[in-house]
Amino acid sequence: MKHIYLLGSTGSIGMQTLDVMLKHQDKFNLIGCSLGSDDEKNKYILDTFKPEIACLRYEKQLSKYPNLYPNVKFVWGDQGLIELVTYDKKGIVVNALSGSAGLHPTVEAIKTKKDIALANKETLVMAGDMINSYVKTYDVKLYPIDSEHSALWQTLDHENQKDIKKIIITASGGSFRDLSRNELQYVTVEKALKHPNWAMGAKITIDSATMMNKGLEVIEAHHLFNLDYDKIETVLHKESVVHGLTYFNDGTVKASLSVSDMRIPIAYALFYPERTDYDKELELTHLSFKPMDYERFPLLKLAYDVGKKGGIMPTVMNAANEAAVHLFLKHKISFLEIEELVYNYVGKTKQIEKPTLEQIIEIDRNIQQEIYRAYEKR
Amino acid sequence: MKHIYLLGSTGSIGMQTLDVMLKHQDKFNLIGCSLGSDDEKNKYILDTFKPEIACLRYEKQLSKYPNLYPNVKFVWGDQGLIELVTYDKKGIVVNALSGSAGLHPTVEAIKTKKDIALANKETLVMAGDMINSYVKTYDVKLYPIDSEHSALWQTLDHENQKDIKKIIITASGGSFRDLSRNELQYVTVEKALKHPNWAMGAKITIDSATMMNKGLEVIEAHHLFNLDYDKIETVLHKESVVHGLTYFNDGTVKASLSVSDMRIPIAYALFYPERTDYDKELELTHLSFKPMDYERFPLLKLAYDVGKKGGIMPTVMNAANEAAVHLFLKHKISFLEIEELVYNYVGKTKQIEKPTLEQIIEIDRNIQQEIYRAYEKR
Repeated sequence: MKHIYLLGSTGSIGMQTLDVMLKHQDKFNLIGCSLGSDDEKNKYILDTFKPEIACLRYEKQLSKYPNLYPNVKFVWGDQGLIELVTYDKKGIVVNALSGSAGLHPTVEAIKTKKDIALANKETLVMAGDMINSYVKTYDVKLYPIDSEHSALWQTLDHENQKDIKKIIITASGGSFRDLSRNELQYVTVEKALKHPNWAMGAKITIDSATMMNKGLEVIEAHHLFNLDYDKIETVLHKESVVHGLTYFNDGTVKASLSVSDMRIPIAYALFYPERTDYDKELELTHLSFKPMDYERFPLLKLAYDVGKKGGIMPTVMNAANEAAVHLFLKHKISFLEIEELVYNYVGKTKQIEKPTLEQIIEIDRNIQQEIYRAYEKR
Repeated sequence: MKHIYLLGSTGSIGMQTLDVMLKHQDKFNLIGCSLGSDDEKNKYILDTFKPEIACLRYEKQLSKYPNLYPNVKFVWGDQGLIELVTYDKKGIVVNALSGSAGLHPTVEAIKTKKDIALANKETLVMAGDMINSYVKTYDVKLYPIDSEHSALWQTLDHENQKDIKKIIITASGGSFRDLSRNELQYVTVEKALKHPNWAMGAKITIDSATMMNKGLEVIEAHHLFNLDYDKIETVLHKESVVHGLTYFNDGTVKASLSVSDMRIPIAYALFYPERTDYDKELELTHLSFKPMDYERFPLLKLAYDVGKKGGIMPTVMNAANEAAVHLFLKHKISFLEIEELVYNYVGKTKQIEKPTLEQIIEIDRNIQQEIYRAYEKR
């Protein structure tokens, strides 16, 4: 029986993680989870999985939940997330939080020697070096849940670092892949949220359309697999069937394929080194690959630059992007203004070569608040 | 330094194996080899690789070679192959012989505890169960060199048997893939020998056009990977980029890709568990997959039937096919008569459930001789 802590239970990855756990109740039990603002989902989770500890999103929720579930220890907010992941029972922390909020809990979870199954990209984007060093110090495992990284993990498992020529991360191209940059000027939020291949949360769906998502994944892959940026490539592959490929020096290429269902990489991380069952089967038909167009997707180019610079820069890029996507979703800025804002902040912020966790968290918060304040009243 | 015995040095796989060895003279030395009828190639091999023992094809060659190379021990013919592989020095036997002649030397090599790198499909087709049992008894390694099996080996390595849903072997379709069965009636030997993707020996090129080659590979895969026939599928993939795919129960599919160059799987087997370098890089463009058409390629269907029947039947099919391809190459029979002959012999030969090595060799020889005699004078 594996003990699971689930951060972001009510989100898209969170609910799919619960699906996997429900299917295998003999294998997993939910020790703790963080809940959201949707009472129905929260109650479903508390009733079905009976966690020992649960983190509420808002303090006001404390007036309701503890009475309904007297056997559950309730905590709340950012501090609650830390209490949750440092709870005194061994287990795997599945971090399915959205955005920069995912970083701090990951660090604290590692410090209490819990293994991490990571769906939160921002953790590694903002503090990859630091996380890798903690992972080593506390001797925990770090498993990726992103479909691309899960695929790459599978093609890299049991291989030698020295044999790797490069890895390729595939990109579907997102909702606007068939539009020119000119046509992007007037696209709507509603259209942006229609991803051709995946049903995902709003933030990542917009990030897919701007290709920022692939940029975050490149930085994530750099830290996860300890590969220089010049060994990480991206390619347009609109079928989303091949999720990742590893090129070896000897001419062999290993690829990992699957239907577009996040429960596959979630289950792979939870069951590792075992594999479980899955009901659908991938059908092989046509697969197309096109070179990435960095002119068309400037945020991906920026992510490479920022990744190579390191230090505080990935945090800056990520913070500006997170705020910008939020504003776009609220109809405060246009689609192309997302890029503008991100480039702007990366350009004007001063580098810090080796930021502390506190600096990372503070700069992330400051940039996001500054951007919200500037555009909120539009 | 790995010691290599190379059977079939002057053939297509043999020469490419020597290419790999020449590039890595610090890693491999040729202890022994079997030569062919081409003096130039023979001398190149003897001069360059200086083997301790060499097997000539014909007795008459004994009048020439020992004088030219006094430091080499020369043997000849089928018995010479056995002397070669039982030579008293440890090493890997690369079996790149063409056809049923490859079986007996493999068995004897295993009995002297030599590891086997197998390019000769017929060994496993004719006597897979026996070979597997010898491999176990004598505790040797059996590495595939066929591109498809090398690819599958890579996707299966370090995985658990119980997690495998099925494997897929890809088929280019061969020289006549765009012709209907009607159009096959009058095809020429010259056209049959023009394979669209690979430069290979004559026998295997014809086998690709009839899809017998894929049938032999299915039987080979059954024995190599210990998988039931209903877990082995074939698919038409005309680009010959993906060589093999493994479907796991958890929804993941691992594929192995490379450019069409046999030196890649040869090097993989020779270097295993290391990987070496290779100069060309696979470009990802467009990959297509089509379901296999068993009506169009009846020999592949027959191979499944014959594989499931087991016993002497795969030997019968292989022997009839080997003789038929030989006759086709000599313009004695038409392309479609290859199929006819093979179906005919499989239909009329009596099953032997557990044939001995002697029975296998005898029946193979009898069928081949009978077919040659019947058609030679045409």
